[in-house]
Amino acid sequence: MRTIKWQNGTVITVDQTKLPLETVTLKIKTVDQMAEAIKNLRVRGAPLLGACAAFGLALAACNSKASCVSEVLTELEDAATILKSTRPTAVNLFWAADRVLDKARDFSGDVEELKALVVGEAQSIADEDAEANRVMGENGAALINDGDVVLTHCNAGELATVEYGTALGVIRAAWKQGKNIKVIATETRPLLQGARLTAYELKRDGIPVTLITDSMVGYVMQKGLVDKVVVGADRIVQDGVANKIGTFTVAVLAHEHGVPFYVAAPKSTFDLTRKSADIIIEERKAAEVTHYGGKQVAAEGVNVLNPAFDVTPLKYVSAIIHEGGVYYQKDFTQFKTNAPA
Amino acid sequence: MRTIKWQNGTVITVDQTKLPLETVTLKIKTVDQMAEAIKNLRVRGAPLLGACAAFGLALAACNSKASCVSEVLTELEDAATILKSTRPTAVNLFWAADRVLDKARDFSGDVEELKALVVGEAQSIADEDAEANRVMGENGAALINDGDVVLTHCNAGELATVEYGTALGVIRAAWKQGKNIKVIATETRPLLQGARLTAYELKRDGIPVTLITDSMVGYVMQKGLVDKVVVGADRIVQDGVANKIGTFTVAVLAHEHGVPFYVAAPKSTFDLTRKSADIIIEERKAAEVTHYGGKQVAAEGVNVLNPAFDVTPLKYVSAIIHEGGVYYQKDFTQFKTNAPA
Repeated sequence: MRTIKWQNGTVITVDQTKLPLETVTLKIKTVDQMAEAIKNLRVRGAPLLGACAAFGLALAACNSKASCVSEVLTELEDAATILKSTRPTAVNLFWAADRVLDKARDFSGDVEELKALVVGEAQSIADEDAEANRVMGENGAALINDGDVVLTHCNAGELATVEYGTALGVIRAAWKQGKNIKVIATETRPLLQGARLTAYELKRDGIPVTLITDSMVGYVMQKGLVDKVVVGADRIVQDGVANKIGTFTVAVLAHEHGVPFYVAAPKSTFDLTRKSADIIIEERKAAEVTHYGGKQVAAEGVNVLNPAFDVTPLKYVSAIIHEGGVYYQKDFTQFKTNAPA
Repeated sequence: MRTIKWQNGTVITVDQTKLPLETVTLKIKTVDQMAEAIKNLRVRGAPLLGACAAFGLALAACNSKASCVSEVLTELEDAATILKSTRPTAVNLFWAADRVLDKARDFSGDVEELKALVVGEAQSIADEDAEANRVMGENGAALINDGDVVLTHCNAGELATVEYGTALGVIRAAWKQGKNIKVIATETRPLLQGARLTAYELKRDGIPVTLITDSMVGYVMQKGLVDKVVVGADRIVQDGVANKIGTFTVAVLAHEHGVPFYVAAPKSTFDLTRKSADIIIEERKAAEVTHYGGKQVAAEGVNVLNPAFDVTPLKYVSAIIHEGGVYYQKDFTQFKTNAPA
């Protein structure tokens, strides 16, 4: 099922902050509405954010009253600035916005043709992501054995992508191949994407899933209950993988217990001109930690750290699954020359 | 401030499930009320549970209508059975109940004298815990340097003990010595003892504290933001330390980052006739993970693991601080002969 759709000049998606208890359809008609949805995590997940940025520019194009191509281009650039200012860490958002902008800049023709081009390019980005996830799923499923228990963190599922999922795509593909696997999902504080979204997707698809708190990862590994870890990524740089806060903790525990740690991400998540130190880690508001459902849970006025992501050095990563195949440790050295095989 | 007090045949404490937003005094008058308070975590923390078991027997003694000593003894044994059935992991509860029972069994005299003896022994257990925490604090403070940032997990504070705290006792003593320290407290899902109790205690005492989710421990260590870890314990056996779920995860991360990992616990927490494999890990109800404040947060019907504790092998423990001094790695080998120096 597509997580995001373009329908007659409107972007149709689901408000992920309301899942799993309510399924509220979002109809996004303007760039500002798209920016709001991204900032407030109504839509989230690196590959989906790529599609959101692209469709955001499609909205800007369609809503334009400009009468000449250069004016439309200026409006697209302004829209891209707004969209890029929403969240700093997932690279797909920047990648998709730039891809659409580059296409528009190279264009020659009239205003209506430009609008059609932008919408078409956004649609291509969405279609390619769906396809990449399916291929990635097949590539990754080869690493999963019959009977494996696979631990995943956060939601790198259908809801984080246009369709199918990255980490959950690998799990889905293994399951579809008849492998009798089970999943352990971490709840993923502070925003509980594991409890709310991953558990929901897997339950819906009939794939056995057990929910744990993030603090239980050490326990389940110590007990030998985990065979593999598969997570998604928000940005892959020369020396590390940025992903949801807590991923690094899981990676260290996997390393300590000899559990393979796999990352599944499309090429649009790779940013090999940069290093870990270049990544801006989004710091979100304290209330995500101190409150739940609008209700205060922590001691009044306590100071809070709330980084939304962490970066896992490549030494902890066993392999990176992508739509072109699988990079293993031996391939990671090529990341520094920006030209993996 | 005493967390638990004996007042004219009533146990006075605070309902810790309501903290920090409400301070509700509990007046416990019967063994059944005490058992309910323990089971539902209105009182918690290994040393405090020892005092609760002892005072529970004091309630049984005082409430007894028996006219002969052997009848009172039988009632005390029945009460001990009820109290011991509440929670299986923290050894202090069993230790304290047995200490009071042994004292009562060895007694000769009349019923009123026996009642007074039981109340007196319970009071001694409470007083000794308060004193042990202060001495332990001094012993542990020697390991904390001026300027250190100390990470702690769960609540091993005043609220987990009769007074002062184990891990937080070490932090309090260092602070009192004028060491300019800061604390990072993990929120400690599922029941948020870190967010609710540790942050509250430290804020109240003016000790700088920053709250993080459990998933951020790797992040703060990777960033070099943590100098020491100090946690409490629920049971120390020959080869490991049982403590709140998530402790093992913190210990592995500390080990990986070269951060000293200290455990602070009174002798009443030591159970050196046993090994890790002998420890019964309490599995609590799924709703603690799937719900918050009575409200469902996770996907409907998802399977859940909810172990309340984990066991950290001694290889990850730099030292154990107790009221008699500090055991270092070199001392741990003596645990197997049940006779540490």
